[in-house]
Amino acid sequence: MAIIAHLLSTTCSLDVSSSNKLHFKSINQCSTPIPTSFNMGISFLPLKNLSLQSKRSAKYVIRTSVVSMSQKAKTHNDSGSQQTADGASSRKKVMVIGGDGYCGWATALHLSNKGYEVAIVDNLIRRLFDDQLGLDSLTPISSIHNRTRRWKSLTGKDIQLFVGDICEFDFLAEAFKSFQPDAVVHFGEQRSAPYSMIDRSRAVYTQHNNVIGTLNVLFAIKEFREECHLVKLGTMGEYGTPNIDIEEGYITITHNGRKDTLPYPKQASSFYHLSKVHDSHNIAFTCKAWGIRATDLNQGVVYGVRTDETAMHEELVNRLDYDAVFGTALNRFCVQAAVGHPLTVYGKGGQTRGYLDIRDTVQCVEIAIANPAQPGEFRVFNQFTEQFSVNTLAALVTKAGEKLGLEVKTISVPNPRVEAEEHYYNAKHTKLIELGLQPHLLSDSLLDSLLNFAVQFKDRVDAKQIMPSVSWKKIGVKPRTVAA
Amino acid sequence: MAIIAHLLSTTCSLDVSSSNKLHFKSINQCSTPIPTSFNMGISFLPLKNLSLQSKRSAKYVIRTSVVSMSQKAKTHNDSGSQQTADGASSRKKVMVIGGDGYCGWATALHLSNKGYEVAIVDNLIRRLFDDQLGLDSLTPISSIHNRTRRWKSLTGKDIQLFVGDICEFDFLAEAFKSFQPDAVVHFGEQRSAPYSMIDRSRAVYTQHNNVIGTLNVLFAIKEFREECHLVKLGTMGEYGTPNIDIEEGYITITHNGRKDTLPYPKQASSFYHLSKVHDSHNIAFTCKAWGIRATDLNQGVVYGVRTDETAMHEELVNRLDYDAVFGTALNRFCVQAAVGHPLTVYGKGGQTRGYLDIRDTVQCVEIAIANPAQPGEFRVFNQFTEQFSVNTLAALVTKAGEKLGLEVKTISVPNPRVEAEEHYYNAKHTKLIELGLQPHLLSDSLLDSLLNFAVQFKDRVDAKQIMPSVSWKKIGVKPRTVAA
Repeated sequence: MAIIAHLLSTTCSLDVSSSNKLHFKSINQCSTPIPTSFNMGISFLPLKNLSLQSKRSAKYVIRTSVVSMSQKAKTHNDSGSQQTADGASSRKKVMVIGGDGYCGWATALHLSNKGYEVAIVDNLIRRLFDDQLGLDSLTPISSIHNRTRRWKSLTGKDIQLFVGDICEFDFLAEAFKSFQPDAVVHFGEQRSAPYSMIDRSRAVYTQHNNVIGTLNVLFAIKEFREECHLVKLGTMGEYGTPNIDIEEGYITITHNGRKDTLPYPKQASSFYHLSKVHDSHNIAFTCKAWGIRATDLNQGVVYGVRTDETAMHEELVNRLDYDAVFGTALNRFCVQAAVGHPLTVYGKGGQTRGYLDIRDTVQCVEIAIANPAQPGEFRVFNQFTEQFSVNTLAALVTKAGEKLGLEVKTISVPNPRVEAEEHYYNAKHTKLIELGLQPHLLSDSLLDSLLNFAVQFKDRVDAKQIMPSVSWKKIGVKPRTVAA
Repeated sequence: MAIIAHLLSTTCSLDVSSSNKLHFKSINQCSTPIPTSFNMGISFLPLKNLSLQSKRSAKYVIRTSVVSMSQKAKTHNDSGSQQTADGASSRKKVMVIGGDGYCGWATALHLSNKGYEVAIVDNLIRRLFDDQLGLDSLTPISSIHNRTRRWKSLTGKDIQLFVGDICEFDFLAEAFKSFQPDAVVHFGEQRSAPYSMIDRSRAVYTQHNNVIGTLNVLFAIKEFREECHLVKLGTMGEYGTPNIDIEEGYITITHNGRKDTLPYPKQASSFYHLSKVHDSHNIAFTCKAWGIRATDLNQGVVYGVRTDETAMHEELVNRLDYDAVFGTALNRFCVQAAVGHPLTVYGKGGQTRGYLDIRDTVQCVEIAIANPAQPGEFRVFNQFTEQFSVNTLAALVTKAGEKLGLEVKTISVPNPRVEAEEHYYNAKHTKLIELGLQPHLLSDSLLDSLLNFAVQFKDRVDAKQIMPSVSWKKIGVKPRTVAA
């Protein structure tokens, strides 16, 4: 992928002439009122003019209707500080690769709010995928440039922006040398299993992009910041569905009278999931060979859209994917319920996975950063809070929908994936709890809120994107050039 | 990598004007006489002129001094035939990817000799690596074009040649559609651990080339030849050195009262070995999702140079690598002994691995092809015959050298790798034996022959290439532009 640009939001390299409008995508399609009292056509001044910026910031905070006092109070919680060698306190620097995506954006804001000095590295290709496949977030999302400007104006906190592709090492090296991160959170991968199964070129893209990008991050740490802690997003899907308990990264095996603790066997079931398996093996090797310190967060399926920070302003709103390529089970079910589309259970619906609220994603990442791995340690956490079958989720959404007066039906559709539809599943997830994670468990109120969110934006739903169109078995070598 | 050319040796697409000389690399550097009675400057006629070809073939067979009757008899052993649907016998078609390399060339000839219809697919980049790093095979090797022409002239058997890069899917697709293989033997990967640890660009090249190349092969099978059996070269290095017995691909684990048979945990220790781990996971998935039939041959360290077929003529001679990048333990020790260089044991020398004679490599591959995996089966064989520690090998070479009057010393050099130097090692290797493998165990006579081979070519040795120059810990991001 080409390097798109290289922007430092704290310097004057931003081309104001080309970004002097807020691109608040498709906002006019919303029938449900959302706060839009600020001037949509406002021209931004160069960011070096910080005095003017801070005046405007105050103004916007006042106009924003969704900032609660408790949220504002959190902006003063400086858990991101660390002691320097001379005993002084400095802010820990965290580079969030993929910081414009669903989990990345929420995490970048949360860490900034917590007092960390944050830089986002992103090539913005997730937005291009939507454009190419004819998809869109249910929620209208702002450009990354406007997002970070809005954050600065609301909180006074800078988030540096490096727009480029980590597969291009020169770009990544410049970002590292400029920002000098203490921790790197790496969300910067193609993260959809169906996307990786569209055609050969997407399969190859996914594995190349994810594996080579991560290799480059490892080399950048080794070369420029050897003490830097890598916090890498893996997936629970790396383990597959074995008929024994899933442990956190490693399993102690007694075999023919001898014993060893070895990496937990991996059985991934898409080219995307496989790319994460490859990453895990590569990272483990560099921890051993080079002394890299790394935490692999094997994350479950994330649901929800609001975090304390993204709720502060409509320009900070996170994306919510409901389509069959990027949408995941619970979020998609809520949108289906909102628009009167039957919930689409793939096959028998006994597929059981770990799930977590996006508010716990950001919490977990912060916990990992605040409690770094030791040099040479390859640490694996299973990052989810509860496990559900697809059928259970459908039942929960049906019940919540009925409370809101929605008539919710469920249909079984032929499973586009190759996976067990009835299986044993018991995955451990205690390490993050031991480090202080306080889970937001799936509750009626969360479902109400998610459903209400979906109802609010239901006129933005493109019903054609709901049904699965990507088949694990039918993937071919011919590029698919039409919408997903 | 660019597509270099696309040649069909059975058609007229060969550009004769640019290949009308035998490029018998460095042959004038040989002080030891080898048979060179044929005309080095002969111009080849276009291959369509088969009548003339066959006349010349006969001529060359007569001139060749190294063809034994037993070897010639083997050319009539047609184990490569198979029954067609109507009961007729046809020859099984085997595509050997990487058929110009050390194992690939020996295998291609062996299969052709056994009656299989063979095509070689190779981009010849292994030769470029030598040129770029200033390395060379101990044995002078012929160009692939001359190799296959010589084989044809000696045996009357065609080996089709497709010169190009399997990372370029269009090239691979054309080769598949043209040749329509019943089995694909995939040696076409960057196969040196030290090469993958030279610098960042070689690490990235290795993983990209190996992983994407194999993905392309899987897609080609799915799209064009779904019954085709993939025989993939893996490595024993995928398993690392666990403190329990190494099984063949899978291990049955009892854990918390439940039991499952899962992929054996992988702990690879170079970017090269890791690339093979990635391949194994990718292939396993496609067997499950698409019904691919695949055999993963986790091969040990190969030693030796002569096989029945490569010994038939000097133009068929295989390469023998003794340098620190592509040379492997036993072969390198023999060359060191021949030139009076101390045997270089890395670290304590307790590193134990599986080893096999190259005559068993070709035998194992043929056994795998003759007994294909079932559709959807991902079968793993550990392909080696004996296990030795480095210290044991050094002692064996010392003893064999003394018999030949060579004074052999051994030194311990700082280990350039990151690996356990004393460890438990017990790897199973029964499946190929059960299918009929008759091992050539390491013997005094083999060591004598290897040592004599090394002595024969000792004036071609570049002593500067012997000591390790690639460090697992010092690998950097700056491209290394000088010789290895």
